[in-house]
Amino acid sequence: MSEIQVRDLIINAIKNKKSNVLKELFETIPTIDIAEAMEDIEDVSILIYPFRVIPSEYTGELFAELSTDTQEKIINAFSDKDLIKLLEESYTDDIVDTLQELPANVVSRVLRVAPTDLRKDINQLLLYKENTAGSIMTTEFIEMKNITSVKDAMSQIREKGKDAETIYTIFVRDAKRNFVGTVNLDDLIFAKDNETLEDIMDRDFVACHVNDDQEDVANMFKRYDLTAMAVLNKEDKIVGIITIDDVVDIIVEEANEDVAALNHVAPLEDSYLDTPAWKMAVKCVPWIVILIVLGTFTTMALDRIEKSAVFTAIPVLISFIPTLMDTGGNTGGQTIALMIRGLGTKEFSPKDFLRVIGKEALTAVMVSSCVALFGFIWFTIEQYTGIVTNENLFIDGVAPTIWNAKCWTATFASHTLSISGTVAVTLFIGSFVAKCVAVMLPLGVAAIKKDPAIIAQPILTTIVDVVSLVVYLLIAMGAAKLFGLY
Amino acid sequence: MSEIQVRDLIINAIKNKKSNVLKELFETIPTIDIAEAMEDIEDVSILIYPFRVIPSEYTGELFAELSTDTQEKIINAFSDKDLIKLLEESYTDDIVDTLQELPANVVSRVLRVAPTDLRKDINQLLLYKENTAGSIMTTEFIEMKNITSVKDAMSQIREKGKDAETIYTIFVRDAKRNFVGTVNLDDLIFAKDNETLEDIMDRDFVACHVNDDQEDVANMFKRYDLTAMAVLNKEDKIVGIITIDDVVDIIVEEANEDVAALNHVAPLEDSYLDTPAWKMAVKCVPWIVILIVLGTFTTMALDRIEKSAVFTAIPVLISFIPTLMDTGGNTGGQTIALMIRGLGTKEFSPKDFLRVIGKEALTAVMVSSCVALFGFIWFTIEQYTGIVTNENLFIDGVAPTIWNAKCWTATFASHTLSISGTVAVTLFIGSFVAKCVAVMLPLGVAAIKKDPAIIAQPILTTIVDVVSLVVYLLIAMGAAKLFGLY
Repeated sequence: MSEIQVRDLIINAIKNKKSNVLKELFETIPTIDIAEAMEDIEDVSILIYPFRVIPSEYTGELFAELSTDTQEKIINAFSDKDLIKLLEESYTDDIVDTLQELPANVVSRVLRVAPTDLRKDINQLLLYKENTAGSIMTTEFIEMKNITSVKDAMSQIREKGKDAETIYTIFVRDAKRNFVGTVNLDDLIFAKDNETLEDIMDRDFVACHVNDDQEDVANMFKRYDLTAMAVLNKEDKIVGIITIDDVVDIIVEEANEDVAALNHVAPLEDSYLDTPAWKMAVKCVPWIVILIVLGTFTTMALDRIEKSAVFTAIPVLISFIPTLMDTGGNTGGQTIALMIRGLGTKEFSPKDFLRVIGKEALTAVMVSSCVALFGFIWFTIEQYTGIVTNENLFIDGVAPTIWNAKCWTATFASHTLSISGTVAVTLFIGSFVAKCVAVMLPLGVAAIKKDPAIIAQPILTTIVDVVSLVVYLLIAMGAAKLFGLY
Repeated sequence: MSEIQVRDLIINAIKNKKSNVLKELFETIPTIDIAEAMEDIEDVSILIYPFRVIPSEYTGELFAELSTDTQEKIINAFSDKDLIKLLEESYTDDIVDTLQELPANVVSRVLRVAPTDLRKDINQLLLYKENTAGSIMTTEFIEMKNITSVKDAMSQIREKGKDAETIYTIFVRDAKRNFVGTVNLDDLIFAKDNETLEDIMDRDFVACHVNDDQEDVANMFKRYDLTAMAVLNKEDKIVGIITIDDVVDIIVEEANEDVAALNHVAPLEDSYLDTPAWKMAVKCVPWIVILIVLGTFTTMALDRIEKSAVFTAIPVLISFIPTLMDTGGNTGGQTIALMIRGLGTKEFSPKDFLRVIGKEALTAVMVSSCVALFGFIWFTIEQYTGIVTNENLFIDGVAPTIWNAKCWTATFASHTLSISGTVAVTLFIGSFVAKCVAVMLPLGVAAIKKDPAIIAQPILTTIVDVVSLVVYLLIAMGAAKLFGLY
């Protein structure tokens, strides 16, 4: 069946209140696909129908997968009884995610009807700052004492496990309520009934604290191949857990933020499709404006260059300016991109900085040499073929190109090569400086605890542009004197 | 204990062959941290010591976490018996990952000593193309018949589960060996002993095929919150499984590739720190060279502009060219970055394309309007304050700035505003075109099944630069005529 047929089937079953078809669909189609189809239904009295007839194990997940708009509509249409049932079937972290997007009056209604324990948990989770471990954790986890026997542990899981976000990791505490280890469900299954959790638990666990950044948490999951991790409070007691499914979303979110920041877009709070155009414009305009202001330094440098004697005498030099500026920006951009992702994914840590700087310096020499060498050849070709022309070097009023044997003189040839050389040397210095600045800037910005992705790139562009232009002017002046270009 | 103290402790225990200390360290410290510390040990006879004394449950993981160089050294130092033991303790997908990096002679030795079954699996996995589901799957999974009772299933898990990569998902087949569902371990634990897998299995599973792209697989894990997924062959029989820990690495890898490609770096095969400088240069140079060649179109356009009557008469217009080109590149870059990540993470699918184009067009109007308006003000300030000067408009040989009341004439004021207007209108058109091209290009490139991240960005830059320059020339000519600028 095609995607559209499935969608029609779902919508049909809901609109025509075919509860049996609907139940079968929930058994055979992933819930998120059903939630997406439901987004096409406008009428809220129809939208709430599935919540009344499908098995309760699906209701929490179905609700969590809906868009914020649809969630709000449904909550407003729900009776208090419906709402309590929904809350009971949902995980606390999903409820908190939803509440963070909803208007205040809806939030207070949800909190009013929530059972006391749940309300306490929700309020606590809502307090944690966005993007911290506390804000993404859930409070439904299985904690047992270290002296619990394997047999008792299994029966406790059978009894209480249904409400937990995961039963695959059991968190073990000692008599003082300190977190001392984790037991994976498979270890429990392979263990003997009379062993205690203390005997079989992993003591080489890692844990995070409520205020840790979610990006750091994601990196720990990746590094240690975890499926669940304990979140500790200041007293090192467990207050919640984070599971791998939330971490996958964070990894994607953080990568999207890096890409956006490197390309001058402020982080989106919602998914791309859920962000309206005006909001997108708000995310896009500020950095463009800042870059125009920063670009003023470039404009000033360029304004002086144009008026310099050497550029007035040899206007062809101006034609190469975009190439010089672009290439500096591009080579620097390569390094900064690798730095941002390396820092973001904790691929390198402070102790690797010297190694990173050394490697980038070496790479910079190689890249700049190759680019300058290629540039020298290419700029010569551009002049020979007349792609760029230098009227001040015209002979008898005719542009001297390689195709024009009459005008092809030794003087012109040497001028052409001098010009290519001038541009190529600038290209080398520009690329080298760009890569060096690009490796130092993110490390520097990260050291003062700011996000290097956002700040480093615009500063790099400005520095590289101005340096390229000033170096170009100096080298051109030197070359003009050396080779007697004018 | 600090990171360095832990490292010293590990190296000490290994060098001094303190097997008890070492065992305790493996129990209390994550294996990857121990593997990293071991990288500092040069002597291979010391390096292989831990493999002889630590519990066998750690050996496979320890080996998998080491760098390729160290792995090669260890394999060469191992006796055949050691090697067989290591292979038995490792997961097939880890072995294949290692073999893909090792030299041919080492690979053939490993295959020679591997038990027949394992060799067959390894050879099969090595056949799958890189970045496909087949190349990342493992063959160690638990498959059971649909008529198996819950009780039998549990005892089968206890018996065979130790060798499986995960026991949390059991893959269920019918009498014809067709894959019919999955059973999560928690469902098994909550079920009654006499129920069959058929009764309790999830039928709303998703699966992938051996040749599916790993990025698509990662997106399915994310969308459906999976921890394990079946990989099917052409006949829809299960041949392997992929688990979430491998997917986390893929998501990071794919994000890094997007960031690299958007910034003109070819994808790195190894991690940043493992890639030597010369290889980094090889990844960096090609696109820079291509961009210089593509930049020739910009150079040609600029060369013509400089020689046009209007730019010769009003040279200040040239000073704004970098701002125009940069802004077009930046606004287009914002859109292309959002497109690349949206396509990469399957946030939008073909059916959303019209919606995406509509939203970007609307955003483009808003962003371009704001930027042009700001530009108009800023360019006027630049002229008033003398940041850029137009010698052809000098009065009595003095630059007319707002600070210079004598020169401040109505004629100059109107000229200044006309120039700002000319640049601002070009800025609007350039930004608008950039954003529109930036939304169409990745969709177009994706439609012909090429990677939009790599190809779209350089083409965008070239198109935007040339369009900006041509539009600038036309508008400047029109404005010059309209306002009598020269």
